[in-house]
Amino acid sequence: MKPGIPQGTRDFGPETVRKRNYIFQSIRSVFELYGFQPLETPAMENLETLMGKYGEEGDKLIFKILNNGLDNPSKQDTARNDFESVLSGKNVKGITERALRYDLTIPFARYVAMNQSQLSFPFKRYQIQPVWRADRPQKGRYREFYQCDADVVGSKSLLNELDLVNIYHQVFVNLGLKDYELKINSRKILSALATLCGGQDKMMDITMAIDKLDKIGMDKVKEELLQRGISEEQVNVIEQYLLIDGDNFTKLQTISALLGDIEEGKQGIEELNYVITNIQKLKGSNHKTVGSIQPAKGSGESSNLINSNTNGDHQLENEESPINLTIDFTLARGLNYYTGIIFEAKAPSSVKMGSIGGGGRYDDLTGLFGVPNIAGVGISFGVDRIYDVLEELNLFPESIVTSSQVLFFNLGEAESFAANQLAQQLRANGISCELYHESSKFDKQFKYAEKKNIPFIAILGSKELEEKSIIVKELATGKQESIQWSELISFLHK
Amino acid sequence: MKPGIPQGTRDFGPETVRKRNYIFQSIRSVFELYGFQPLETPAMENLETLMGKYGEEGDKLIFKILNNGLDNPSKQDTARNDFESVLSGKNVKGITERALRYDLTIPFARYVAMNQSQLSFPFKRYQIQPVWRADRPQKGRYREFYQCDADVVGSKSLLNELDLVNIYHQVFVNLGLKDYELKINSRKILSALATLCGGQDKMMDITMAIDKLDKIGMDKVKEELLQRGISEEQVNVIEQYLLIDGDNFTKLQTISALLGDIEEGKQGIEELNYVITNIQKLKGSNHKTVGSIQPAKGSGESSNLINSNTNGDHQLENEESPINLTIDFTLARGLNYYTGIIFEAKAPSSVKMGSIGGGGRYDDLTGLFGVPNIAGVGISFGVDRIYDVLEELNLFPESIVTSSQVLFFNLGEAESFAANQLAQQLRANGISCELYHESSKFDKQFKYAEKKNIPFIAILGSKELEEKSIIVKELATGKQESIQWSELISFLHK
Repeated sequence: MKPGIPQGTRDFGPETVRKRNYIFQSIRSVFELYGFQPLETPAMENLETLMGKYGEEGDKLIFKILNNGLDNPSKQDTARNDFESVLSGKNVKGITERALRYDLTIPFARYVAMNQSQLSFPFKRYQIQPVWRADRPQKGRYREFYQCDADVVGSKSLLNELDLVNIYHQVFVNLGLKDYELKINSRKILSALATLCGGQDKMMDITMAIDKLDKIGMDKVKEELLQRGISEEQVNVIEQYLLIDGDNFTKLQTISALLGDIEEGKQGIEELNYVITNIQKLKGSNHKTVGSIQPAKGSGESSNLINSNTNGDHQLENEESPINLTIDFTLARGLNYYTGIIFEAKAPSSVKMGSIGGGGRYDDLTGLFGVPNIAGVGISFGVDRIYDVLEELNLFPESIVTSSQVLFFNLGEAESFAANQLAQQLRANGISCELYHESSKFDKQFKYAEKKNIPFIAILGSKELEEKSIIVKELATGKQESIQWSELISFLHK
Repeated sequence: MKPGIPQGTRDFGPETVRKRNYIFQSIRSVFELYGFQPLETPAMENLETLMGKYGEEGDKLIFKILNNGLDNPSKQDTARNDFESVLSGKNVKGITERALRYDLTIPFARYVAMNQSQLSFPFKRYQIQPVWRADRPQKGRYREFYQCDADVVGSKSLLNELDLVNIYHQVFVNLGLKDYELKINSRKILSALATLCGGQDKMMDITMAIDKLDKIGMDKVKEELLQRGISEEQVNVIEQYLLIDGDNFTKLQTISALLGDIEEGKQGIEELNYVITNIQKLKGSNHKTVGSIQPAKGSGESSNLINSNTNGDHQLENEESPINLTIDFTLARGLNYYTGIIFEAKAPSSVKMGSIGGGGRYDDLTGLFGVPNIAGVGISFGVDRIYDVLEELNLFPESIVTSSQVLFFNLGEAESFAANQLAQQLRANGISCELYHESSKFDKQFKYAEKKNIPFIAILGSKELEEKSIIVKELATGKQESIQWSELISFLHK
């Protein structure tokens, strides 16, 4: 039997796991800095929890779990009947009653609805787990992939939007993507545009056409709008809307002239203005960004507190990178449930890559589960795409892919025993290392170190055993030195 | 609709996730110190990869995934036929061709077989991922649970067994479980016992009866052995075997007298002797154990290197805890594929809990996938049980369950803006914090901090805004202090 894995799934070998964990940890540490807490839900949900939440197309892409015990003779007639329903496109409990999570939002909503009496609101959670979709696999699209979400629910305050913008900024800067772009718009503005151009029932038509602007261009969008029953005059207004240009405040002025008289438009504009203004003001007094994997700690310095005059000198250049927040009225975000501010994050323009994150505000997370009026706002990071971007820009730190720092050569029983003792000492001091598993030729042991990317080899033969010394060679430079056992740890810490 | 989750599955809220991550991280960091590298495989495997690997009972407990698109009209007749096969207990590709991972060993074997030409052997991998089993849920038994495995494959060296014993020891000591017990035996000794008592074809009968000793007691085990066709004389030899007592070396002497003349027995005894002796010698010169979450780093001190006379003074008591490795000839481990040394880890006897880990050596990991002769040895940790043990013994560090360190009260627009600026400064210095989302009554904001276990609240009202100060209150002590903005970070780092 030739082994394989299901189409659209992936094995992650050591180097890939380490790089992915670097991304996860970079994101997680920033979520934590803003008071978000981890949640994990089961891979399986009851089928009824998921069905009907992702539209007709989505329903078809949910992986359902076959019930166990269908070979039980007493249940076979029922099973046969139930299977007929499956063939006609229905899901029946007799055949399948569980399914794999399709995203993290619905399980989160289900969790909040189930636990609302125990939770303290606003509830800020982040969740980093795989989801499964029976999509046709293609480049960059998998049947198993991780989502990475943060949401605040139980709060209508725009302070949350400020936090989320800052989170995007800090994560991207920490990952070395300071030239990211974060686009922002408001569903309220899109709604006002619909009111102006054909009425609320045209809202979906308009957003869906606008959503394609990047791909199909203005002419095709206008064509599509006409086909969807928008009048030519209205299409011209929409074109005017889509062509709004300039810096953020110019854009806000222009849109005010167009939609400021419509109540929802006015609200949307005010909210965008609040976020843009406050982010700018906040940033104006904050130049330092956090370290992700190893947050700066213990210094206690106060040099860049508000109104301090001594800040700046010791900071790295990229710690002052601006927050690249741009109003983009062409941003629509397909998902239906957004009702306020919406976000989309783009990779630095030097890389051809679509969105690497997105999110927005919604009015009602848990209504579907019988708990109305829980509003919230959330964002997510596209981890697979961020991985590809970091790979292309060569931004993964080299240090994250090494495992053992030292390979002790195995040169016989007494020698390897002494080496093993030294290895234990290194580990007790936090240094990963290993002893080669058998007394083989130098060459073979050397190749093992090379293939595993181990930076140092340590050779302890009979002469060294007598002298209580060890030869340490750095593979990158070829430099080698004889070191006393008692000096080994400080040598490696150097 | 009242939301729920499938039987046997669990949501993990923030505190539980943090505690579980503490366990995972404690284990992972020790795996890494010994040169093990992370691997992740997909949740789904091809059904044929899994079927037939876990015995008839196991096969029934595998969660199978229903194919999508069964409502395609052109395929319905075939599907109906295929479903008849499902009803008769077979799995057919027309209905299901994928299934959820049942353990981590078979996916690992499949990975090694698929990638053998790229891997460098010995290949040391660890894997921490959920598995799914359609078992009847009961206390402590779930349908979704994590396994946590480390294996070395492509090596027959007993140095690996030494590493694995040291890993068990370090993990348990790091978790505060220094009174764990690690039992060790060899399948070769059990095999020799079978040779002596009825022949090799009685090996399974004997191990299965012995495996029950803990639960049913000696008399019942003897009864069962008789029923399984072992003669009374042979049963008496087995009883003699099971009653072997004393310290490890006494046990080895006694077993030598009983089984030392049988070649396999001799080998098994030599191997046990090697492990016991070397662990003792290694430990004799190594007293310091590693810190898990924060490995001791950077000191560069050499005071406890081999033959140094200055070690000891600065060490914590539990850093010198002995390795509790005990030969237990009654240890059998049900799984068939073990062929050499076997392990089982027990929680400290103050807690009523069965095994919290186990493993052993096998001759042939990948033969089932067409790649013969890959020998290895592995161990696993029972994370759910370890969780319960740490909970019962109150061993989770308090610090791991706090999220935000500081809640800034929201006392109006200008005040909260200044607070938000301070919050950003704290985050830039690695301190998690949050600003309450709206300007509510003190009481409400206070309760939020309490419920979320936030240790400090920070109050910035109009007076403080003018004075550039802030009142910081520690909730545990009720102590509060007015602090200048420029002093806040150093105050919190105190």
